[in-house]
Amino acid sequence: MTPQPNPQVGAAVKAADRAHVFHSWSAQELIDPPAIAGAEGAYFWDYDGNRYLDFTSGLVYTNIGYQHPKVVAAIQEQAATMTTFAPAFAVEARSEAARLIAERTPGDLDKIFFTNAGADAVEHATRMARLHTGRPKVLSAYRSYHGGTHQAINLTGDPRRWASDTGAAGVVRFWAPFLYRSRFYAETEQQECERALQHLEDTIVFEGPQTVAAIILETVPGTAGIMVPPPGYLAGVRALCDKYGIVFILDEVMAGFGRTGEWFAADLFDVTPDLLTFAKGVNSGYVPLGGVAISRKIAETFAERPYPGGLTYSGHPLACAAAVATINVMAEEGVVEHAANLGACVIEPGLRELAERHPSVGEVRGVGMFWALELVRNRETREPLVPYNATGDANAPMAAFGAAAKKNGLWPFINMNRTHVVPACTITETEAKEGLAALDAALSAADEHTV
Amino acid sequence: MTPQPNPQVGAAVKAADRAHVFHSWSAQELIDPPAIAGAEGAYFWDYDGNRYLDFTSGLVYTNIGYQHPKVVAAIQEQAATMTTFAPAFAVEARSEAARLIAERTPGDLDKIFFTNAGADAVEHATRMARLHTGRPKVLSAYRSYHGGTHQAINLTGDPRRWASDTGAAGVVRFWAPFLYRSRFYAETEQQECERALQHLEDTIVFEGPQTVAAIILETVPGTAGIMVPPPGYLAGVRALCDKYGIVFILDEVMAGFGRTGEWFAADLFDVTPDLLTFAKGVNSGYVPLGGVAISRKIAETFAERPYPGGLTYSGHPLACAAAVATINVMAEEGVVEHAANLGACVIEPGLRELAERHPSVGEVRGVGMFWALELVRNRETREPLVPYNATGDANAPMAAFGAAAKKNGLWPFINMNRTHVVPACTITETEAKEGLAALDAALSAADEHTV
Ligand SMILES: Cc1ncc(COP(=O)(O)O)c(C=O)c1O
Ligand SMILES: Cc1ncc(COP(=O)(O)O)c(C=O)c1O
Repeated sequence: MTPQPNPQVGAAVKAADRAHVFHSWSAQELIDPPAIAGAEGAYFWDYDGNRYLDFTSGLVYTNIGYQHPKVVAAIQEQAATMTTFAPAFAVEARSEAARLIAERTPGDLDKIFFTNAGADAVEHATRMARLHTGRPKVLSAYRSYHGGTHQAINLTGDPRRWASDTGAAGVVRFWAPFLYRSRFYAETEQQECERALQHLEDTIVFEGPQTVAAIILETVPGTAGIMVPPPGYLAGVRALCDKYGIVFILDEVMAGFGRTGEWFAADLFDVTPDLLTFAKGVNSGYVPLGGVAISRKIAETFAERPYPGGLTYSGHPLACAAAVATINVMAEEGVVEHAANLGACVIEPGLRELAERHPSVGEVRGVGMFWALELVRNRETREPLVPYNATGDANAPMAAFGAAAKKNGLWPFINMNRTHVVPACTITETEAKEGLAALDAALSAADEHTV
Repeated sequence: MTPQPNPQVGAAVKAADRAHVFHSWSAQELIDPPAIAGAEGAYFWDYDGNRYLDFTSGLVYTNIGYQHPKVVAAIQEQAATMTTFAPAFAVEARSEAARLIAERTPGDLDKIFFTNAGADAVEHATRMARLHTGRPKVLSAYRSYHGGTHQAINLTGDPRRWASDTGAAGVVRFWAPFLYRSRFYAETEQQECERALQHLEDTIVFEGPQTVAAIILETVPGTAGIMVPPPGYLAGVRALCDKYGIVFILDEVMAGFGRTGEWFAADLFDVTPDLLTFAKGVNSGYVPLGGVAISRKIAETFAERPYPGGLTYSGHPLACAAAVATINVMAEEGVVEHAANLGACVIEPGLRELAERHPSVGEVRGVGMFWALELVRNRETREPLVPYNATGDANAPMAAFGAAAKKNGLWPFINMNRTHVVPACTITETEAKEGLAALDAALSAADEHTV
């Protein structure tokens, strides 16, 4: 499909937006949301005829790209027969989605509690863990994002928590491994891993193991910087959980469903959590859906004792039908394998090549279709290109990078001093190379701010 | 459409459900979720050829009934063009849904923050209130339901809170008016109103007004029993909020969008809150959607200071397109007026007539398409037909009532000792009378447990 410029409609859409839409995470009068006319595959376009290659997948959720015809058709068919039905009943789309997800989740995580999205999946997973153990605390990592509701944002490590953090009861934060900015004074991945595990065990012991219900971790932390954990770290956390009777929750809202080149990122590390949260990729966000995959042990806790939680749209048929179609499309078209291959053979070498030529690139890290470039003022000192949580003038170097990317037809994902390369998992080699070329130009703008 | 019996498919749907679906609010091994094959208008049917008149509207959300052809078509069209797009952009369905909602919300509530459902709407509304005032506490009523996430369930007055209530910081509960079981020892609605307001003001004063960010109330409490507030109560709460600089939040997740025979229940009382939460009826739950309508004053707080909250699917295009179509259908077909009229002319007289003949009916109360029958063992003592929060044998009388309703082709809404009459707002007079006849039979089963 070709973008059809239609600036008048665009102006009307924008006017109504400015008058009536209150936007997430924003100062309402300081934003200028671009009006978007359409999207297909890895691209979207505005009303002025500008077309962008989307290196963000929305908010890292359109893993199969925009408007996959089979998933669109499945939504249309489900809408024609049963758009919605209340959660206390068995309905086909719900049963089938649960079956397809359970077939793919690691280990014995084969009961699915459906939610509307990621934050409520985290809310319910932590409730399950607290009730299963009878313990009050949940341990979560700095450099993490777990969602925007009160409990989920308090489990979050990034600054978006601050305004809502009045010292939530039962939340304890710790540091996960991050060799590039190691505060464990490690020099190798193995050292970072061992020391991070030591730090986590110390935290558990000093908090009192009998007070710790759960440890929640993003399998690969996403928005906070795509820090692929070193080999052995997640297995080590699993062992600590077993040692102290703690529930291990892996948050795969962003990392799951193909993003890392596996159905679940846990598969990269051969680790099985007790609870796994998902959303986004489960149906590429075509209809809001999330959930918690539950191990047998925890499901047992709620076999004869009611689980005290729920929501009106749990297992929404339209959302579940989109999940069924998405999972089937991913399986039939080999989307997960494609993500792994294109990541390893095109994205990773392309990014490493860019890093060689651009002094602003401090580190390239990631896996599958899940990559981060850490931009720095100086490679030796590793000083970030912009300070932590910078705004306004202090953020100018990243703003310049972003503007240059857009000028080159690329819509980049930017968070603090990083750009993430998180396109649709279905992107072609040609599209990937087009994106890498645009990144090349944009990094030249960032280079100007290095010293 | 006629139900096509197909017990084999039904058995497969149920088997996959039992193996893989973890249900809300349930002991997983003690439930037996009926497998549902289809739904249309005010009816649904199972795979064995049983068809039910739905007096629940799902969980009181399918206000326009199941499978309204115009809304189905709108979903299909939106799916064909733009199923999804990230929240930081202006897109047509999102802008138009916000405009149509803002046009109908009371007063100056004309900025819309979209969420996925009711619980997250409540989470964000309370955050906005806390940040707007800089105060920590939110006051909520016993006999209320505000959602299943941690903050929302802690604001909830019903027993579903208990398991998650470890003494949430910043939540204070008070008693709202309920003349039938007055604990203000009132004999008239006016007395109940005055005394409930006095109790609320006492609570504010003793908590310390400067610590109270918000009062949240369901405009007409729903799941907790459809207690239509006495004339003057909500205006009185509004006045207390103004007096003490407290944000007034009305939760219209259940009461909004036609349920009470008005677009918003606040219109029944000529009251304008500072924040209004909605979900369910906004698009009859065809696609998960909720939101917060925000007054100018509170939007101002986040004009130049970022609102620290958000979610991946805020203003999801498919959900918003369903809202646009639903609101337009409701306006074109006069659904709101129909709900008011049929409620006043058919449902209310029908229920009052049943109450005269059935000693198990203690009170009939409600408005529009929002009615409750309070069932009692004895009309004089008003002892509930079953004890508060009863299960198992103690709940047998209500179970008998429910079974009798289903035997007569009616799917009833049951909560503790009450049945709610909450059909689609589009139900016809003939359908309403069919439902009342089935209720008649079911109440005879309840009568057997009166003393
Ligand atoms: C790891 C992780 N968990 C939870 C969430 C919250 O999901 P949602 O925005 O759908 O509530 C996100 C969103 O980006 C996420 O990346
Ligand atoms: C008044 C009210 N608020 C909030 C909610 C929570 O909505 P949801 O289940 O969509 O999260 C409900 C659900 O029944 C409700 O009735």
